[in-house]
Amino acid sequence: MKQNIYDNPTFFEGYMNLRDSKMTYNDFLEQPAMKDTLPDLKGKRVMDLGCGTGGMSKYCIEMGASAVVGVDISEKMISRALVENKDENITYVCSPIEDLSFQKEPFDLIVSSLAIHYIEDYEFLIRKLHSFLKPGGLLIYSTEHPVVTARKDMKNWWQNAEGDRLHWALDHYREEGKREQHWYVDGVIKYHRTITTLVNGLTDHGFMLEKMLEPLPTKEGIDLIPSLKNEERRPSFLIIRSRKTD
Amino acid sequence: MKQNIYDNPTFFEGYMNLRDSKMTYNDFLEQPAMKDTLPDLKGKRVMDLGCGTGGMSKYCIEMGASAVVGVDISEKMISRALVENKDENITYVCSPIEDLSFQKEPFDLIVSSLAIHYIEDYEFLIRKLHSFLKPGGLLIYSTEHPVVTARKDMKNWWQNAEGDRLHWALDHYREEGKREQHWYVDGVIKYHRTITTLVNGLTDHGFMLEKMLEPLPTKEGIDLIPSLKNEERRPSFLIIRSRKTD
Repeated sequence: MKQNIYDNPTFFEGYMNLRDSKMTYNDFLEQPAMKDTLPDLKGKRVMDLGCGTGGMSKYCIEMGASAVVGVDISEKMISRALVENKDENITYVCSPIEDLSFQKEPFDLIVSSLAIHYIEDYEFLIRKLHSFLKPGGLLIYSTEHPVVTARKDMKNWWQNAEGDRLHWALDHYREEGKREQHWYVDGVIKYHRTITTLVNGLTDHGFMLEKMLEPLPTKEGIDLIPSLKNEERRPSFLIIRSRKTD
Repeated sequence: MKQNIYDNPTFFEGYMNLRDSKMTYNDFLEQPAMKDTLPDLKGKRVMDLGCGTGGMSKYCIEMGASAVVGVDISEKMISRALVENKDENITYVCSPIEDLSFQKEPFDLIVSSLAIHYIEDYEFLIRKLHSFLKPGGLLIYSTEHPVVTARKDMKNWWQNAEGDRLHWALDHYREEGKREQHWYVDGVIKYHRTITTLVNGLTDHGFMLEKMLEPLPTKEGIDLIPSLKNEERRPSFLIIRSRKTD
């Protein structure tokens, strides 16, 4: 099943309000770390997988990329991208990642922010992305951290009577697969995978792992969103940079 | 500080009783997975780091290794190794890993079972091991999983009134460094490191990551030690196989 929760009107409204607030974990945690992980983009061809409203696609152009193809399953997201981050060197494509097949010219870089946990078949995805890259090309993705997605019950932290967080809960780590949660609407589906599945899926299919990051928030972020301090206690995201070797 | 807890008489007695029972997590979880991860050993020169009583050193000889150097900080362990797993092609060396400096002939493989979490300076260790390996040589180690070592309080699981385990506790993940626990004696010290520190310490210092494993127990193990079922819920160990590239 290819989930297109972003075209659900209730979800879309909730998500866009959050995003427009510029007060999200993406703004102060995931996006700064992803940007730090990018290579020199001058003259590079980039694919932005799960591009949403096109912020990362536009950023790559600003950093010198010669062409970006932004891909998203959601028509609502692509419509917004065409308004907010239109650029003559960006082509936005509305398609499930799984169905992509064009790629006349292979890419130097595929970047993907918090999208792969929506994809059911990771190995199929990695094989496909491998075929889209030039030899030596980079794949850089962020995903919800496996320690976050593991537990089936979404109650993930414990507190005492004073409201202090005592610890986070971990469980069901090896039970990979669907996790359903309420996020603006019921039934948002993510796929939990272990760290070893994420890593070996790359090293077994023609990628060399270059770096892993469990990002920490920016100082500005902690001032604005105090809960970001908790990233010291349990990481929300995992970023993996890998390179096509054969 | 180089910890030598294994020479503490109380610790040694407790540990040896456990080990001699052949009813440990090592027997049914960590050791089978480590052995599965080994390459063809025929004619290979192997270093066994934190060799304890020499079980893995002997196994490598049985699998065809031409020579093994077993290293352990504990005199008591090395004495036992010389009784239990003596072999004309195994040299046992009693030394802290940090102080090793001989290596006239470099190794094809360094293997290390559940020892590196006792070492304070991981980067120094990796640089040293890199210098001990031939080009293309393998480093395979197991360590306590970062999700296990992270929380400072050693109470790591929660249960309900009926005694069912509800979840495991995770906390302090980014606070790397000393963790003190009671294991036969007070003050056993391990060092917590994040997954990204473990991985980047390799990829930043001339190793290519080939595989990561979060081992599951053998069927026999689950029959004998029912608590091993919990490995499905939270992994105890992490195994990393990496190759020297330059």
